[in-house]
Amino acid sequence: MAKQPIPYKIYLSEEEIPKKWYNLNAAMKIKHAPFLNPATLQPCGADDLKPVFCDDCVSQELNMTDLYIDIPEEIRDFYKMYRPSPLVRAYCLEKALGTPAEIYYKFEGNNTSGSHKLNSAAAQAYYAKKQGLKSVTTETGAGQWGTALSMATAYFGLDLTVYMVKVSSEQKPYRKEVMRTYGAAVIPSPSDTTEAGRKILKEFPGTGGSLGCAISEAVEKAVTSDSCRYVLGSVLDHVLLHQSVIGLESKAALDKYGVEPDVIIGCVGGGSNYGGLIAPFMGDKIAGKNNIEFIGVEPASCPSLTRGKFVYDFCDSAKITPLAKMYTLGCGFMPAANHAGGLRYHGMSPVVSELYHEGLMRAVAVKQTKVFEAAEYFARTEGILPAPESSHAIRVAIDEALKCKETGEKKRILFGLTGTGYFDMAAYKQYNDGTMTDYIPTDEDLEKGFASIPDIPQNK
Amino acid sequence: MAKQPIPYKIYLSEEEIPKKWYNLNAAMKIKHAPFLNPATLQPCGADDLKPVFCDDCVSQELNMTDLYIDIPEEIRDFYKMYRPSPLVRAYCLEKALGTPAEIYYKFEGNNTSGSHKLNSAAAQAYYAKKQGLKSVTTETGAGQWGTALSMATAYFGLDLTVYMVKVSSEQKPYRKEVMRTYGAAVIPSPSDTTEAGRKILKEFPGTGGSLGCAISEAVEKAVTSDSCRYVLGSVLDHVLLHQSVIGLESKAALDKYGVEPDVIIGCVGGGSNYGGLIAPFMGDKIAGKNNIEFIGVEPASCPSLTRGKFVYDFCDSAKITPLAKMYTLGCGFMPAANHAGGLRYHGMSPVVSELYHEGLMRAVAVKQTKVFEAAEYFARTEGILPAPESSHAIRVAIDEALKCKETGEKKRILFGLTGTGYFDMAAYKQYNDGTMTDYIPTDEDLEKGFASIPDIPQNK
Repeated sequence: MAKQPIPYKIYLSEEEIPKKWYNLNAAMKIKHAPFLNPATLQPCGADDLKPVFCDDCVSQELNMTDLYIDIPEEIRDFYKMYRPSPLVRAYCLEKALGTPAEIYYKFEGNNTSGSHKLNSAAAQAYYAKKQGLKSVTTETGAGQWGTALSMATAYFGLDLTVYMVKVSSEQKPYRKEVMRTYGAAVIPSPSDTTEAGRKILKEFPGTGGSLGCAISEAVEKAVTSDSCRYVLGSVLDHVLLHQSVIGLESKAALDKYGVEPDVIIGCVGGGSNYGGLIAPFMGDKIAGKNNIEFIGVEPASCPSLTRGKFVYDFCDSAKITPLAKMYTLGCGFMPAANHAGGLRYHGMSPVVSELYHEGLMRAVAVKQTKVFEAAEYFARTEGILPAPESSHAIRVAIDEALKCKETGEKKRILFGLTGTGYFDMAAYKQYNDGTMTDYIPTDEDLEKGFASIPDIPQNK
Repeated sequence: MAKQPIPYKIYLSEEEIPKKWYNLNAAMKIKHAPFLNPATLQPCGADDLKPVFCDDCVSQELNMTDLYIDIPEEIRDFYKMYRPSPLVRAYCLEKALGTPAEIYYKFEGNNTSGSHKLNSAAAQAYYAKKQGLKSVTTETGAGQWGTALSMATAYFGLDLTVYMVKVSSEQKPYRKEVMRTYGAAVIPSPSDTTEAGRKILKEFPGTGGSLGCAISEAVEKAVTSDSCRYVLGSVLDHVLLHQSVIGLESKAALDKYGVEPDVIIGCVGGGSNYGGLIAPFMGDKIAGKNNIEFIGVEPASCPSLTRGKFVYDFCDSAKITPLAKMYTLGCGFMPAANHAGGLRYHGMSPVVSELYHEGLMRAVAVKQTKVFEAAEYFARTEGILPAPESSHAIRVAIDEALKCKETGEKKRILFGLTGTGYFDMAAYKQYNDGTMTDYIPTDEDLEKGFASIPDIPQNK
């Protein structure tokens, strides 16, 4: 039988939007170490998490046994506004590179928030509404998560307060406007609306704020109200669970054409997009059903997997969150001003960390200028202007395709194109002007960060 | 037989991308008056136009007989990177409004240029390449056209010089960066690279430039080189021809579900998007095959159809282009600072003007604050942040749907969602801050513009 030609874009029908998420935790033979309550150093149970997060999210967070978890109809209806997202065969890029490799990418930027973040924002907003809550809070730095959440809360009819790092809210006033247009209250952090904010303002009157401080303010607002919870856009297991729609759709689209990827590449910041993209493929690998090579790409300026330590650490720099066993540069690590805001995180999702620790995936760190070189090349050949974060994956996908050109291998490469770069043009300007530089932390820089890792028995 | 349910988004397959454009000129019983050479006042022939535009575009411009014109395979391949665009059933909007009407919109913003402009940019770049030219030039104000063209020239391997109104290039530095990322040379206009520019700089040393001046510079660069031509993003017949893919895809998608629209709404600036959206539907109406109501929406601040004169006028404010018979406020009309940059044009496509003159469509002028009210409502219900231009159509679509709520009519409303508003957040900020105002020109303001209309025998 003649094989059906593969189109430029494989669109699934709306009926093919997954009806269940894929819980990678259930597929993993070795489970990642539990979160610890920093006061007691005991594993966090539901009771520790429920004052902060929505009940359903807590249940999902702690679920290590159910491989599939139902996606409520209301969330699937929301997904229908922008999903299924296209799985693109990069014919133009292949031709430009002259590679025998087949390149595919799952494009998650075709929605107003501009990234994959909306997949979890929709789910978390729905669960908050279902629980009868009136509002949710979060923090945002670069602004993609805040934008996604504002779209979701507008749809489900919840109030939203976003604590936006003050310096970001000044540098990215238009990101703030998108959130306001969706009805969110955007408060530059530190602010005088919380104890945590007031304390920092008193201590550092002129500060531009930090993500750690913004998290503290958002969590404080959540835990001091019965009708409000805090929502987070990455790192946690339930966020990765929601993001598994990316991988499930990718797999369904490739299955239609009998294509199994040889390599799956994605950028890793907190790990939610990559964890979601690889979920069903990795589950199959653990079960011995495939031999796919998994590559996570991080910036050389913030190399948590390739140069970090696998220990218990705080998820935030303010040291108020539970402790997670993960690859970390230390919660006090200060990454350089690096344009991929979404990859500037000191730690890594415990799930992705565990996979890396077991050798089920490898990691590559790339320099910023090489990333933007790939981004520009991709924009010109494939038409889409990529986000700096996503461009880390593009860089390594191109490198892999060029290796195939050398060897003649016809590898099938799949990568995650997580978002668009419309709000990152200041970084592109630096690249276009030739003023962009690369920063790689010295061992001494790293030691300073490691010094902030908590000195607890579990880390001995 | 049970009717198939209509999904949120109707995607055609890539094979269903139209193979031919629809030439509305051939369907019109009364053809629009010809362009005139301003020196001789004789109708423009191919020889008048070929020094400025590509040969194939000139042939298309003057073709009044062929109803269908082949789309070259190379252009269809380009289209496959972002087309077919989705035809969306606005279930969420219908529900929020509580209307019995069915609302559909064709979304053209799902590409990096953010608008429908790419449909003609791809065609014009291809024809320039086919003719053996090395480069093309254009002007841009708001920047969407320049962005689209830079994507197309990067793909087809042509050099591109964009004369960007100086004040715009300063106010919208990031738009400029997108074009640079695609390899375009962006020159703030007026510049010292042309005679026209130097003359204006000498006369007005500190000027921020104007679209008229930028056109003069771009056309001068084209006509003084054998290997360069000028390309234009709206108004002309061949641009409307290329944009007919919007209407053809919309019709094919609706036909699949047996839906015929009762009303088709679009914003009108130069007229290319609306001319393209309505083309096959209007052709059928002229042939007596339907009774669709067509509504063009313009800003009350620049009301060329509703308050303009139907006369011969220059297409630019510098008075260097051919004369077109069209609805115009006078080439010297200075519209107020109105955020829908794409609708700030003094004239109107001769095709759309003729349709309006014959009563085949009607026009509505709307106020800016009411437009942004609709834009925000749409963003919150349908998830997509619309461009201010497109939001003019949204305003009237919502108004029509609310009328149906009163009357109980189940009208099927189709409108064109031409683009996204990512680069228009300054306008949204004004709206969010409550500082946006409405401007409506007085009769006296209009008289000043009308005074710039050329005093030629054809206008008596």
